[in-house]
Amino acid sequence: MTKHLTKRKLDKTRNDRLYFDSYSDVTIHEEMIADHVRTNTYRTAITKNSQYIRGKVVLDVGAGTGVLSMFCVQAGAKKVYAVEACSIAEQAEKIVKHNNMEDRIEVVRGTLETVDLPEMVDVIVSEWMGYALLHESMLNSVLYARDKWLKAGGLILPSKAELYIAPISDPVVQDRLYFWYTVKDRYGVDMTCMSDFARRCIMNSDIIVNSVTTEDVLSHPAHFAELDLYSIKVEELRSVKGQFRCESFGSAAVNAFCIYFTVTFSCADTQQALVLSTSPFKPETHWKQAVLYLDTPVDVVQDTVFAGTVSMFPSEKSTRHICVHVDYTIGEQERQSKTFSIPDWSSEAQP
Amino acid sequence: MTKHLTKRKLDKTRNDRLYFDSYSDVTIHEEMIADHVRTNTYRTAITKNSQYIRGKVVLDVGAGTGVLSMFCVQAGAKKVYAVEACSIAEQAEKIVKHNNMEDRIEVVRGTLETVDLPEMVDVIVSEWMGYALLHESMLNSVLYARDKWLKAGGLILPSKAELYIAPISDPVVQDRLYFWYTVKDRYGVDMTCMSDFARRCIMNSDIIVNSVTTEDVLSHPAHFAELDLYSIKVEELRSVKGQFRCESFGSAAVNAFCIYFTVTFSCADTQQALVLSTSPFKPETHWKQAVLYLDTPVDVVQDTVFAGTVSMFPSEKSTRHICVHVDYTIGEQERQSKTFSIPDWSSEAQP
Repeated sequence: MTKHLTKRKLDKTRNDRLYFDSYSDVTIHEEMIADHVRTNTYRTAITKNSQYIRGKVVLDVGAGTGVLSMFCVQAGAKKVYAVEACSIAEQAEKIVKHNNMEDRIEVVRGTLETVDLPEMVDVIVSEWMGYALLHESMLNSVLYARDKWLKAGGLILPSKAELYIAPISDPVVQDRLYFWYTVKDRYGVDMTCMSDFARRCIMNSDIIVNSVTTEDVLSHPAHFAELDLYSIKVEELRSVKGQFRCESFGSAAVNAFCIYFTVTFSCADTQQALVLSTSPFKPETHWKQAVLYLDTPVDVVQDTVFAGTVSMFPSEKSTRHICVHVDYTIGEQERQSKTFSIPDWSSEAQP
Repeated sequence: MTKHLTKRKLDKTRNDRLYFDSYSDVTIHEEMIADHVRTNTYRTAITKNSQYIRGKVVLDVGAGTGVLSMFCVQAGAKKVYAVEACSIAEQAEKIVKHNNMEDRIEVVRGTLETVDLPEMVDVIVSEWMGYALLHESMLNSVLYARDKWLKAGGLILPSKAELYIAPISDPVVQDRLYFWYTVKDRYGVDMTCMSDFARRCIMNSDIIVNSVTTEDVLSHPAHFAELDLYSIKVEELRSVKGQFRCESFGSAAVNAFCIYFTVTFSCADTQQALVLSTSPFKPETHWKQAVLYLDTPVDVVQDTVFAGTVSMFPSEKSTRHICVHVDYTIGEQERQSKTFSIPDWSSEAQP
């Protein structure tokens, strides 16, 4: 059955992974730049803050292809230090020259914690967010940069991150669990006895990054944590937690929670801040949502209360990997808890 | 950028892989059984051969959930030995009992090469095909079973496999290469200098398993190899090769070849054999097609000749992994050759 294992792993989805591994150098950046919600929100936030950027010095943490650094030059930055640890920095160099910005942008190859800058900066810009906000995120590097390189009263873009949770009903999982009841009609063989095995396999403790459809969200999302990038300390990232309470819109079979985040850019020239949202109620971004499956689906009715606490902390195996612990009650059900994580093999991703 | 690497790898496709790894136990089998082209063709072939199966002894090589074994019992088999090396054999046991076939089907846990059967068999049935037919395939086990356990004059289902190749134009790749020319209009930053880097990343030497759309196939596919399961020797699998010649339907930018296979079941009660096809011109199967990218797109006109040889052989790193070498000319272009393979990490799949 090794064949089947690999066969399965090489199907479309596996194959896409084949793509995105083999081509990750370009594909990662293609995807991020193609994410117009992400890229346009950053561009707008930088433009709206041009009065604070014009003639100033900017630090771009994890610059990638350097697109945010170039937005800062478009906004009048005097100098931008584009710090990037990966080989994509070579492409950033080319792009900067190609756009005649080499006099304004200095691509600095290295990790933020190790590079040496010739001066303090007025502004820090960074697109540091990972899945579920904190998975493999660069927030610690941004805070390090803030403490070491940002002038007093300097600007951080974005300046705030918030986390939300909502119960959902994933129809794909429902269909997959039901599949085994359809086999007899298809082929005259009764495979209903596979359903429990299927449920255990599918509703496990892996964090699944997927697009949650608006209709599948069963309540108003609940805000459970907020990070102020001007004041939060690195140590506080060891445990980001909060309480939540939601009430079901109607009757449904809940089979998961979804977690998503927003980041906020304070805007100089207007009272209203700019928000980059990864909510399932907003246009899709490449972050999608983080889906955490219950052990088994639970039928709820209108106004059923979902209440509990969410705690996010680094995995013991890899501090870059996030774990999510959810302690919750659904209606009158007894309290339950489940800890979710990104499977080990995703550490393949680490250079 | 480690964050971005992982972030990318955890996007929908990565996440699907997350699914299919974590849940592979069930997902592999769910996908194969849900592939009605695959499963119905086997079922029909077994039914049509019932006169050779009724009252006879059958060996199912790589039985998985045991669905083919149960089809054989439906066709009147006296006894079926369902040989399965993986833990899914435990589920097969349950399913067999659940269908009251435990007196007819004996699930034998182990590899075909090591299990001991109490008797010779009249029929061998196996769904042994991997991607591009031979990647991680169980064909060698089927041939081993044929030589050791099949009675003289016994039946093998399927009895023949054939390989085909055709030039294609993958629009996704064209779009991805063009993407970098669209960035300036989107964000006012010129990233056209990324296109060569993107091409090198995207059009590499990985075998990509993907669904090829009929309209993207640029010529009639060319048959380049045939394997007769009654006569072929295991040694012959060390190099499966053949020549091909195709003529372009019209003008297009060819950027890849696609390889696919068919397997044929001889049918007792009819002259027309039954064919399970993975052709892009036929309904999709979970095998999809194997796509091999050229180093760079080539513009062709109607009747441009694609000619060359295809050679498939086991990877030196892992004999279960297939490599494909294509030596070809396109029109008047000078002869070129490229060797493709499944990236190493897919050996994760091996238990």
